[in-house]
Amino acid sequence: MEDIHHTCQWGTGLRWGSARTETGMSRLSLTDADKQAREWFIGTTQALGCKTTIDSMGNIFAVRPGIRNDKPPTFVGSHLDTQPSGGRYDGILGVTAGVEMLKVLADNWVETEYPVGVVNWTNEEGARFPISMVSSGVWSGSIPEETAHNLREVHPGNATMASELSRIGYLGQTPCSYESFPMAAHFELHIEQGPLLEMSNKKIGIVTGVQVYRWFTIKVIGRDTHTGTTDLKSRADALLTASKLVLHSHRLATANSALASTGILTLKPGSPNTVPGEVTFSLDIRAPTDSTVETMTQLIESDFPKIAAGENVLGSNENCTSGLPCDITITLDSDSPATTFHPDCISAVTRSAQSALGEDAKALTMEMTSGAGHDSVYTSKRCPTSMIFVPCREGVSHNPAEFCKEEDCALGAQVLLQSLLRFDRI
Amino acid sequence: MEDIHHTCQWGTGLRWGSARTETGMSRLSLTDADKQAREWFIGTTQALGCKTTIDSMGNIFAVRPGIRNDKPPTFVGSHLDTQPSGGRYDGILGVTAGVEMLKVLADNWVETEYPVGVVNWTNEEGARFPISMVSSGVWSGSIPEETAHNLREVHPGNATMASELSRIGYLGQTPCSYESFPMAAHFELHIEQGPLLEMSNKKIGIVTGVQVYRWFTIKVIGRDTHTGTTDLKSRADALLTASKLVLHSHRLATANSALASTGILTLKPGSPNTVPGEVTFSLDIRAPTDSTVETMTQLIESDFPKIAAGENVLGSNENCTSGLPCDITITLDSDSPATTFHPDCISAVTRSAQSALGEDAKALTMEMTSGAGHDSVYTSKRCPTSMIFVPCREGVSHNPAEFCKEEDCALGAQVLLQSLLRFDRI
Ligand SMILES: NC(=O)NCCC(=O)O
Ligand SMILES: NC(=O)NCCC(=O)O
Repeated sequence: MEDIHHTCQWGTGLRWGSARTETGMSRLSLTDADKQAREWFIGTTQALGCKTTIDSMGNIFAVRPGIRNDKPPTFVGSHLDTQPSGGRYDGILGVTAGVEMLKVLADNWVETEYPVGVVNWTNEEGARFPISMVSSGVWSGSIPEETAHNLREVHPGNATMASELSRIGYLGQTPCSYESFPMAAHFELHIEQGPLLEMSNKKIGIVTGVQVYRWFTIKVIGRDTHTGTTDLKSRADALLTASKLVLHSHRLATANSALASTGILTLKPGSPNTVPGEVTFSLDIRAPTDSTVETMTQLIESDFPKIAAGENVLGSNENCTSGLPCDITITLDSDSPATTFHPDCISAVTRSAQSALGEDAKALTMEMTSGAGHDSVYTSKRCPTSMIFVPCREGVSHNPAEFCKEEDCALGAQVLLQSLLRFDRI
Repeated sequence: MEDIHHTCQWGTGLRWGSARTETGMSRLSLTDADKQAREWFIGTTQALGCKTTIDSMGNIFAVRPGIRNDKPPTFVGSHLDTQPSGGRYDGILGVTAGVEMLKVLADNWVETEYPVGVVNWTNEEGARFPISMVSSGVWSGSIPEETAHNLREVHPGNATMASELSRIGYLGQTPCSYESFPMAAHFELHIEQGPLLEMSNKKIGIVTGVQVYRWFTIKVIGRDTHTGTTDLKSRADALLTASKLVLHSHRLATANSALASTGILTLKPGSPNTVPGEVTFSLDIRAPTDSTVETMTQLIESDFPKIAAGENVLGSNENCTSGLPCDITITLDSDSPATTFHPDCISAVTRSAQSALGEDAKALTMEMTSGAGHDSVYTSKRCPTSMIFVPCREGVSHNPAEFCKEEDCALGAQVLLQSLLRFDRI
């Protein structure tokens, strides 16, 4: 807990309560605040006897030697970057629990069979550079490094991942790849970010997989015109069209038991008396199965251009004058397919939860799927992987008020440590 | 035409054609570019024998003495500020035609009965500081000067009108008021900004009044949450709500033969995987009559909170899961009531158009109402006022491609000069 709150001095966000630690976090990836958190991570893990390696995506691997060192290390890890108005636990818990693990191993003179390590992945959130888990994605060979390096920040400013990695001194020499830096396994402790554990009074979620999601950028082009002299029929109103599309994405999500979300929307020129000629927005589509997201993608690709052209799809124009057609482009930015975690890791977590919780284990644990993406999605493509969830208050995340009880953090860290040791032994 | 294109070197906007003058304008009020245009205006009118006065809103009055000077001057005027992606004619034509008038009077040694003048009004567009015609509004006593001075710019930056007036050196000593600086009359030449003149092959619009409009700021407060872990029912999605409201404003406008437009929309926190907890947008409502805008206002005030609360008003939720309620605030920012111009001024314009067009006058002129607001709305509260419209290509305005033919500009300027002289005589 001390490490969590100590590191949250870098990038402190909005206050939600009166106590010293009752603030959120705003530590976007590769900012100065992120650099400070990284320096703490390197200094602390080195002091605990680790060798640290920075790869070409700025991922930091801290490795503690084992009795034998002829096989890759077993890792725990997560991320130190946050949302622009995020909380103190998302990602941070997983990394600080890894550091705590190193302390426990050192304090108790534990020697592991093989090396073990803690990894801090770069730009997991995708909140600054808009592909989530991009650096574990490069490590796994799923995302080309060039694509990642050229990613431009979502908010005005022209920085790319490569330029910011250079600027803060984290463009490492080691190639970012599972081939250059292999792992025996990857375990990740994370807050659930949803309400299921809390609602059912469970303490540990044994995560067996992650739902699929795709991110799109939608651009609508209409025509700048005067709001006072242009009748509704003569307008190509890019914002009216975008509003219909946002609503329609929710209609499609409702019909297909999927999720649709728009978190970013910008328009031009941005004047009270000019009908906007251009709107760009993000669209995040999720569902438990690849086929549902594929269906949603097809519906978006067929319906959105019709709505932009003025057709009345499923009531999109209901009682509303339709203007001139707008042009539309739909770009797929990233695709995180449905993930199933490794039975050896799931079993290591299950047994560790049993040993930590004793006879209450059955009542206090549950298997579940993650609604959010995590770096474990990509590590699972190259090594056995699984995750441990702990409850967070009201399921709220990506919000300054995100909160996880101290005892829940501690229990999660204990299960994480044991899972790693179990895997190391097998 | 030389003055138009010469002054468009300050704040040149987007290019729409290949010729030197085929660009739009981006000269927001009280920027450095606006200061340069103001300095040209002062230098040029002084060289033509005028005395210039700057008032406490930065309005610039250039006055040419008459035979007698014991009555207030008759003015022509408009504005030199533009939209962020505006054209070369909106406002600029009216001021440069005034300067041309001064040249014609000087070249021909014309003496007027009473003084005459040209005025450049500050921030007519309302595009930077979000009340349109704010400085003629202060002059007429309709808007408190304090409100105007405290207006904050719409785009990030913290400047107010007062701070920017000081910064560029245009916070004048003369109180901004019709009492300190009275006018005998105000004539304004402007492009129509709509398609009616062009569509009916007319050359001169004799403007008899201006439609009413109100500007609102709508703020929707929901809750930041994770896009992947929060089901649709558990979201208070401020952007989904704002989309429904934008669409609903168009439904209400359709039903009431009014106009509704949203030109600005910003959201927080702005991340692809966070449901936005806060959206703020502008709403511009217009109609020919005060009563229609009043009806629209009442419908907005009753329907918007219902929609934000999740009720299905006129199909606003059609086929779409409704989430948790959002809070909403609706603020009226400005109100420009329906305006009827003065019969003496209308008649001066009608006769001047007749004399300029000869026997074609009937075929080439029409009486009309303005869809856009103009400083003449406020001057008309304190002195006889009317306007002259000339056609612009396809009715397009607030767009870089806004265009008015040279011969149409010239004809408008001729009618403007004659209208002023006729009024001076009566
Ligand atoms: N855990 C988390 O918030 N990751 C960000 C990627 C996502 O959007 O799911
Ligand atoms: N003429 C003009 O574009 N004025 C701006 C005020 C308005 O929005 O009508």
